[in-house]
Amino acid sequence: MSPTPLTDFSKLCVHTITTKPWAIEESMDRYAEAGIGGITVWRQWLDGRDIEKVGDQLRERNLEIVSLCRGGFFPAKSPIALEEAIEDNRLAIREAAALGAPMIVLVCGAVPGQPLEESRKQIAEGIAAVLPLAEEHGIKLAIEPLHPVYADDRSAINTMASANAVCDQLAHPLVGIAADVYHIWWDPDLEAQIKLTGEKDRLFAFHICDWMTPTADLLNDRGLMGEGCIDIPGIRAMVEAAGFNGFNEVEAFSDRWWAKNQSEFLEAIKTAYLKHS
Amino acid sequence: MSPTPLTDFSKLCVHTITTKPWAIEESMDRYAEAGIGGITVWRQWLDGRDIEKVGDQLRERNLEIVSLCRGGFFPAKSPIALEEAIEDNRLAIREAAALGAPMIVLVCGAVPGQPLEESRKQIAEGIAAVLPLAEEHGIKLAIEPLHPVYADDRSAINTMASANAVCDQLAHPLVGIAADVYHIWWDPDLEAQIKLTGEKDRLFAFHICDWMTPTADLLNDRGLMGEGCIDIPGIRAMVEAAGFNGFNEVEAFSDRWWAKNQSEFLEAIKTAYLKHS
Repeated sequence: MSPTPLTDFSKLCVHTITTKPWAIEESMDRYAEAGIGGITVWRQWLDGRDIEKVGDQLRERNLEIVSLCRGGFFPAKSPIALEEAIEDNRLAIREAAALGAPMIVLVCGAVPGQPLEESRKQIAEGIAAVLPLAEEHGIKLAIEPLHPVYADDRSAINTMASANAVCDQLAHPLVGIAADVYHIWWDPDLEAQIKLTGEKDRLFAFHICDWMTPTADLLNDRGLMGEGCIDIPGIRAMVEAAGFNGFNEVEAFSDRWWAKNQSEFLEAIKTAYLKHS
Repeated sequence: MSPTPLTDFSKLCVHTITTKPWAIEESMDRYAEAGIGGITVWRQWLDGRDIEKVGDQLRERNLEIVSLCRGGFFPAKSPIALEEAIEDNRLAIREAAALGAPMIVLVCGAVPGQPLEESRKQIAEGIAAVLPLAEEHGIKLAIEPLHPVYADDRSAINTMASANAVCDQLAHPLVGIAADVYHIWWDPDLEAQIKLTGEKDRLFAFHICDWMTPTADLLNDRGLMGEGCIDIPGIRAMVEAAGFNGFNEVEAFSDRWWAKNQSEFLEAIKTAYLKHS
């Protein structure tokens, strides 16, 4: 099974966190100059900005706004904190609408010591609570399963199967899945779950980067495509076979790359995209 | 579902790696003085020792030898390296027989960049290759699924389901599973897989420790029971419900604990065992 050959950057999307040293204004100029097709905007990049204006600026530069990153973090131990999380997700939906982003990526959350089953229940309830506002604005909500190494405090949804279970439970066309190779590459059940996700029309996003050996830092030592051990073309072939034809989103947190010249990094991203994705 | 109350140390087993600063001679004296029922010996602790004599010394101290740790690391990229791995596992079987250990724990191995499917195939082939010698000596081989964070270079077997699949394939009474809470606690499929493992009479070992938030080091920052987020009594209840009545083995790699007085650490293990396991 081979993926579609990548010969240009029309389906390349870069997350603003990937080039963290750049503010949104610089990101949009550099991405546009580089001929990149899409951008996923992290919410912090909108701090203090006129969000609608940023959306206009991105569109003027022919950057397709792929998603707003991120909502989620629903689980909590107190009713007040649960409600605050839901309110923050409602705010994210309004921000996405203002920006003109069709989708929000959800890092679902977890509370150390709270049973994962309870967190999963709170996640489903939290998404259900914000769905009416998502419907009003037509914003998709993409559950991103996170690698099990983050099950303690970042997400109780750690496999595609687990994400599919929440989607089944909510059974809503605006609720789907963001598949990130970093989180799911190890899963023996991956191909079957990606196929199922496609059949249910809920494969909303595809994120790429690589897994470094050794991993120096669990959060900020992701590799550029080709630097690590993930068979990215193989997984891209799976998502394409499942009907996905959206952007390939480069979401690489890396202290190592952030310390370098970001224009050179952007060129490295483009090269790695064509060669190793 | 509640586990059997723990009121003494007859089912407590400590891995020699847990009290790493102690050589085997000191470990056996201190464990015996502490009234601990069992010991799992790591192979490095036998370097330069008369293995049969160590076995006798352990038995004289009424320490039940629970297992020899560890074999495995079967996957490799060259035929020579594959054969070397098999030979090393045969050596481990002979060492277990000399020591009087009834079981070897297998950390199955992985090679960065080699597809996990290929590594899993090599693991099954490697175990099959050493099974005749294991039969000759009556040594059980316990596949330990490792947390997916180790899928790059330590094990391609990352879930109970994946370990069960290899056991199904080999279908041999000497091939089973070592369930370690550190590796499997996050798995939404855990209870069902533990139940299945019990039904197939292949739940050979149960390892305990805790998951720290944050985890400072992926290898050597395991917590003592109660320090982290794992519901150890809950998982112990699952293995007991599946028919397991063997030792609860404390396998905690911890730079933090190794830096302390090991006698005090052993007391802390006993306290945590009764209170949080």
